[in-house]
Amino acid sequence: MAQGTKDRASVLQETDDDARRLARILLRSARSCALAVLEPETGFPFATRTLTGIDTDGTPVILVSGLSAHTQALKADPRASLLAGEPGKGDPLAHPRLTVTVRAEEVPRDGEAHRTLRERFIRRHPKAKLYVDFPDFRFFRLVLQRGMLNGGFGKAFVLSAEDLAIRSPARAALAAAEAGAVEHMNSDHRDAAGVYARHYCAARDGDWTLVGIDAAGIDLASGDRLKRLEFEQELESAEALRGELVRLLRQARGDG
Amino acid sequence: MAQGTKDRASVLQETDDDARRLARILLRSARSCALAVLEPETGFPFATRTLTGIDTDGTPVILVSGLSAHTQALKADPRASLLAGEPGKGDPLAHPRLTVTVRAEEVPRDGEAHRTLRERFIRRHPKAKLYVDFPDFRFFRLVLQRGMLNGGFGKAFVLSAEDLAIRSPARAALAAAEAGAVEHMNSDHRDAAGVYARHYCAARDGDWTLVGIDAAGIDLASGDRLKRLEFEQELESAEALRGELVRLLRQARGDG
Repeated sequence: MAQGTKDRASVLQETDDDARRLARILLRSARSCALAVLEPETGFPFATRTLTGIDTDGTPVILVSGLSAHTQALKADPRASLLAGEPGKGDPLAHPRLTVTVRAEEVPRDGEAHRTLRERFIRRHPKAKLYVDFPDFRFFRLVLQRGMLNGGFGKAFVLSAEDLAIRSPARAALAAAEAGAVEHMNSDHRDAAGVYARHYCAARDGDWTLVGIDAAGIDLASGDRLKRLEFEQELESAEALRGELVRLLRQARGDG
Repeated sequence: MAQGTKDRASVLQETDDDARRLARILLRSARSCALAVLEPETGFPFATRTLTGIDTDGTPVILVSGLSAHTQALKADPRASLLAGEPGKGDPLAHPRLTVTVRAEEVPRDGEAHRTLRERFIRRHPKAKLYVDFPDFRFFRLVLQRGMLNGGFGKAFVLSAEDLAIRSPARAALAAAEAGAVEHMNSDHRDAAGVYARHYCAARDGDWTLVGIDAAGIDLASGDRLKRLEFEQELESAEALRGELVRLLRQARGDG
């Protein structure tokens, strides 16, 4: 056992800001993840695919049908995990991926939290509008317990729930302003999203729009692609948003 | 409870040959899958990514480091599942995917089974040659228990282990002939793999080679892409292989 611990310790690296940043981007830019739940009858771990979004505090959310096996499983036992990060081209193991263990909490449909989540989720996944209001559909917040980042061969990092949380005191104020700010950017500053995507998120083409804003960054979409721009640090107030968006734009255009 | 059962039944469709075929292709053409295991300390289901191969009886196999968290988990509890099928472009939930629940069985390194698996796995994943013989690496056979196919919205099917097994009596004879047959096809019938990939597996471009043969079909690779051609029915003898490969080629070329 001591030997096993030593061996594993030698694979794990010390978690630094680059690892935290990569982990946050993997989780916050995911359109879908593998979700692992516990099969009620057998106790087997059961992996499935779900669309994912992110609440304004950094908590992943899923929208699921009550008829699905994974929803039944989460109602019976809230322990779950999400695997974020697609294999893409080349060696599947060369692509970074993140597992977060979570506790699922169902979001009541008649509350304010549901309304906010619904709005954010539909901006991220416009087609979800077709079924989000079906009577059997529910949001679950997947409350973060711990993360394990695999950044490629021999690069493993453990992350705490705090490493993946958005903790700014401006969280609620930004959430209240989000829909208006997104609409304003997409209508009055139509080019900005493309500049952000190309300069900060390695996008090469696409017709980008802003689909989310929170204290830690912005979400950008083009068709079925999603990118996450993380701010250098979390905004401390809702008033700081405008300045940060302008600064990022100027910096990208090389005159800031 | 009766209500829940009734509702779920209405989502499930009757498993037919098309569903079996799609499930087999998803599993047998996967380069990597999400693997869900049980975290020993916490009991949480833990999803991670692994390269996958297929044994000649249809059993999925993984090659894993003893230092990894998922290997430790499988040694403590063999219950696991694999999610096959990548989200690709467009709506992630529109792409078919398959979950199989499995029991993991470690393959002893000094046996014949290991030698055969090693050879098949390396043909499928040539880069695995770099680490397959590291002392901490092991193959696990993931013995199939049950499958759940999701073929897109509202198209769910339950599969049995038998639906996903390769049961031909020619299994061992074909395994013994596999390496030679693959080499022969790739050197003496260099165009055949491309014909198979384009005509039967919807490949549009690529430089295809044969990387696997078993009683139920062949595996084709081009760079990091993998395709699975399933025979209409399993070969009943090793001698039937040549005829089937010729028949498929003629049919594709429209003169058969």
